[in-house]
Amino acid sequence: MLSEFDLIKHYFNRDRPARATLGIGDDCALLTPTPGMQMAISSDMLVEGRHFFAGAEPYQLGHKSLAVNLSDLAAMGARPVACTLALALPAAERDWLHGFSSGLFALADAHACELIGGDTTKGPRNICITVFGELQPGHALRRDAAQPGDDIWISGTLGDARLALAGYLNEVPLDEASLRAAAVRMHAPTPRVELGMLLARQRLAHAAIDISDGLVGDLGHILARSRVGATLDVDALPAGDVLATRDTALRRAYTAAGGDDYELCFTAPASARAAVLAAAGSVATPVTRVGRIEAAPGLRLVDAGGHALDLKLSSFDHFTS
Amino acid sequence: MLSEFDLIKHYFNRDRPARATLGIGDDCALLTPTPGMQMAISSDMLVEGRHFFAGAEPYQLGHKSLAVNLSDLAAMGARPVACTLALALPAAERDWLHGFSSGLFALADAHACELIGGDTTKGPRNICITVFGELQPGHALRRDAAQPGDDIWISGTLGDARLALAGYLNEVPLDEASLRAAAVRMHAPTPRVELGMLLARQRLAHAAIDISDGLVGDLGHILARSRVGATLDVDALPAGDVLATRDTALRRAYTAAGGDDYELCFTAPASARAAVLAAAGSVATPVTRVGRIEAAPGLRLVDAGGHALDLKLSSFDHFTS
Repeated sequence: MLSEFDLIKHYFNRDRPARATLGIGDDCALLTPTPGMQMAISSDMLVEGRHFFAGAEPYQLGHKSLAVNLSDLAAMGARPVACTLALALPAAERDWLHGFSSGLFALADAHACELIGGDTTKGPRNICITVFGELQPGHALRRDAAQPGDDIWISGTLGDARLALAGYLNEVPLDEASLRAAAVRMHAPTPRVELGMLLARQRLAHAAIDISDGLVGDLGHILARSRVGATLDVDALPAGDVLATRDTALRRAYTAAGGDDYELCFTAPASARAAVLAAAGSVATPVTRVGRIEAAPGLRLVDAGGHALDLKLSSFDHFTS
Repeated sequence: MLSEFDLIKHYFNRDRPARATLGIGDDCALLTPTPGMQMAISSDMLVEGRHFFAGAEPYQLGHKSLAVNLSDLAAMGARPVACTLALALPAAERDWLHGFSSGLFALADAHACELIGGDTTKGPRNICITVFGELQPGHALRRDAAQPGDDIWISGTLGDARLALAGYLNEVPLDEASLRAAAVRMHAPTPRVELGMLLARQRLAHAAIDISDGLVGDLGHILARSRVGATLDVDALPAGDVLATRDTALRRAYTAAGGDDYELCFTAPASARAAVLAAAGSVATPVTRVGRIEAAPGLRLVDAGGHALDLKLSSFDHFTS
């Protein structure tokens, strides 16, 4: 049987610390921070049956587990540096570990994010990753920095991850090809790391958040912390390729409050429009202007004609849903 | 019902970041490292039914969850700075959250370790804490630094945590008063933070590890990484108050391989003996000399008379036991 020690050695310890001063295998990892830089830190926990289905494909799960964390660094504008992985597994299965670690390392390598430590134990499947990034002091894209007059921008497209979930749960009829296409967005989200770094480094955006629990709820965090309101043009929200083919009601609901998108929502002054588009173009990330920050509190949803919409949306909450 | 947002706000967000540049409530926390210092990082995951009993008293559990992480910083000689907490809970129970957060914060405050972020979700109870500490470059107490001729030292006492577990599992008959006394060591371990920091700062110790899975196994990690061997005087091992009253066989087994002790095992040159005792005395932490590092590989267990002991011990492994 595979011991805990062998499990770490074979699947997670690559024995070539790059950035870390001391990597896996001691009581702590050691990092030497870049002089003058701030460290951005975030932890996310993914639970089987809640954040992913039992039997989820391990390569995709390894990717997604790190992606949702890198997305938090992106929303801050930080450059990924390192991560730790704590893993509870019902058993040490070689195939699962090979797939999971391969998916995780493929994404980690793409962002030069080094796995420097962690923990493994037996238990109901649970994946807890903590990521570390760096940024210049004062450059962080904070939730409390939106200003009246700012444009509201969204990267990429929204709603296909939620549509895939609806397909799996038979909430919405979805043919197999459509489900497969939408499911890519659910299983393999793309953290917008380069866009976030550029928005921070060029001081283009005021506030940012990553959309994990649905745009309306996540934008609400920016509004609350910045003590501002907003008008959101729901029909301007960029729908995912599969969702774009569905009816208006479904498109509005899932783009506005779908969840699991891991796109960035950020605010930037109107004077920065051309610069935002140029920056996004330079990292091949589409961005769409979808609304405006206003001094009056509250979030006003409108349609393409500017008429108020009452969508009865609710953001996902882990303890009340 | 308590929402995820309210849960964090009421039980974990104390709204007064001390050390953090930006604390709970954004996509990431921001830390500004002390110039010139290295960062020590460790993650531990505690699973209900594995690391603690279902129904474990929440205040003690909050203490222990952080204590096992601070113990990793202690074993590196790092000063605690901050931590993140990711928490999966079957339900958001106010009493549990109040107890858990109170226990965690009491220990965090005692070590000036600020909770700067994390995650909460519904799921089988699982507690994942990542801690951050700081130390001078070159001062870390690494597992690979033991040298032949070094003394082997143990802080505090060993085995009462294992004895309490044996009592709970009815492996060993234990009267109620004894169980209660031994159980304190199981439920409320003391991380040896001050001792570890002093050993590092005064450059007294070569190698160190914290004893979580049993001394023989944990010392084995030092031996393997340092490519040395050792002789351990099993009868010199300091037994916990309750274990000290039991027979020799039980005392030997549980001091040598009990687990869950969270004492430090460290090696130091014989020339540092007086300085080690003085340092330990200055932070009111008893230390005991229990063996010697040798060039010949392997771990030799001997009794008080120097005769070889064959104890048939095995270290705890999460996937094979």
